[in-house]
Amino acid sequence: MTEISREHPRYESLITREKIVEGVRIGITSKQGLVAQGRGEAFDYLIGERTTESAAFAERAAVAHMLLATKLIISVNGNTAALVPENLVALADVTGATLEVNLFHRSDARIHKIAEHLKSRGAGKVLGCKGDKRLDLSHDRAIVDEEGIFNADVVLVPLEDGDRCQKLVEMGKTVISIDLNPLSRTSLSSTVSIIDNVTRALQNMTQFAKDMKHDSRQSLRDVIVSYDNNKVISDALYAIQERLKLQAGERGIQWI
Amino acid sequence: MTEISREHPRYESLITREKIVEGVRIGITSKQGLVAQGRGEAFDYLIGERTTESAAFAERAAVAHMLLATKLIISVNGNTAALVPENLVALADVTGATLEVNLFHRSDARIHKIAEHLKSRGAGKVLGCKGDKRLDLSHDRAIVDEEGIFNADVVLVPLEDGDRCQKLVEMGKTVISIDLNPLSRTSLSSTVSIIDNVTRALQNMTQFAKDMKHDSRQSLRDVIVSYDNNKVISDALYAIQERLKLQAGERGIQWI
Repeated sequence: MTEISREHPRYESLITREKIVEGVRIGITSKQGLVAQGRGEAFDYLIGERTTESAAFAERAAVAHMLLATKLIISVNGNTAALVPENLVALADVTGATLEVNLFHRSDARIHKIAEHLKSRGAGKVLGCKGDKRLDLSHDRAIVDEEGIFNADVVLVPLEDGDRCQKLVEMGKTVISIDLNPLSRTSLSSTVSIIDNVTRALQNMTQFAKDMKHDSRQSLRDVIVSYDNNKVISDALYAIQERLKLQAGERGIQWI
Repeated sequence: MTEISREHPRYESLITREKIVEGVRIGITSKQGLVAQGRGEAFDYLIGERTTESAAFAERAAVAHMLLATKLIISVNGNTAALVPENLVALADVTGATLEVNLFHRSDARIHKIAEHLKSRGAGKVLGCKGDKRLDLSHDRAIVDEEGIFNADVVLVPLEDGDRCQKLVEMGKTVISIDLNPLSRTSLSSTVSIIDNVTRALQNMTQFAKDMKHDSRQSLRDVIVSYDNNKVISDALYAIQERLKLQAGERGIQWI
């Protein structure tokens, strides 16, 4: 890894980059995934690098869906596997979810490598190697396991492609996305759109799942019924606006 | 390169990613540079993937500075070398600038490879290999050529680090940056902050330089005097806000 001085003003952000570059080096993350990581960084900066009240609300609604699910899958790609393997395993454990590897830049070698990586971090069963069903999409994220995403009623898709997200919703599934762009097709088409950094979101959701695990099914249903996804997206846009306004003010830039 | 269907809704953006991934494959771009590219993509999306009127104004002011310069350098990093080598050469030709390679993740091999890459695209002299002077910074972008950036009165820094940008300004240089984040330290500290995609910016500037090349020195000075950099940054923030508002409206999301 390139040596980065602790004095560098963007030290934390540069270290995260180094982690994901390491993911590429060991064959887990695709190079294109690094660009996607950068897009996320920019939106996280805009949202203020914190979980907004509204995002926490979405995370609770997501957990309610997960705890009520009959067949719950967490879809894992090369970026989440490199950045947050332990968090994925912890959330799966507490919610009873199964992890399924699903890649845009798919190869059998990468799928197996990621599955092994997750198992080395404590994952039990990891799906995605079979790829015995296909969604109606023109790229490799179409390839899924029948006993996994294909038959699931609830799917958590951190860092997803918009068209696959739409397809899963069209199939009648409850889709929970984690995506920092409030106006991405993923955020706009999901049942629950978590507009938060994937590391913070998974940590919060694991805590919420522990808290809510023994709640009655009716009280979980109440959380879902009172949830308004469009409001959460509106709130995220407002948070971006307020953050830009604040930063401009601090820097003597006129807000027009 | 991974096959990408033309039907994919983000086809153009994905193809650009493939280009910069190719830059990594041939040793020109660093893997960390891919993450930086992603950050730029996000801000370009926010600004509407177009040159705003205000950015065009900044590009004209930048060209006026360049045409009045005594010693003009265009700093080249691994991302600009991979994405826009021809545009860098064209702008240098019309303004009489010299290109200098300057890297955050520096190695002699990469510097030479980039210099050769630029020469294969028509560049004459390319500086940056000597590295015989050092700016007061804790990372490798400190290393510059005495006959280049160190002695220049005007420096164009596309996709720059904030701290080096500040340092160059402190040294009394006129610094022109190209950076899509209007509130980055680079944009906030530059003499002229071009808040535009680097491909569009360089193409516009080359055209403006052709148009303005035979203008009198007084008329170039007038362009500079009437230029207000803080206003340009304000305008960029306004453009982002308007773009988000428009997109939210089109998608039925309430703007609060």
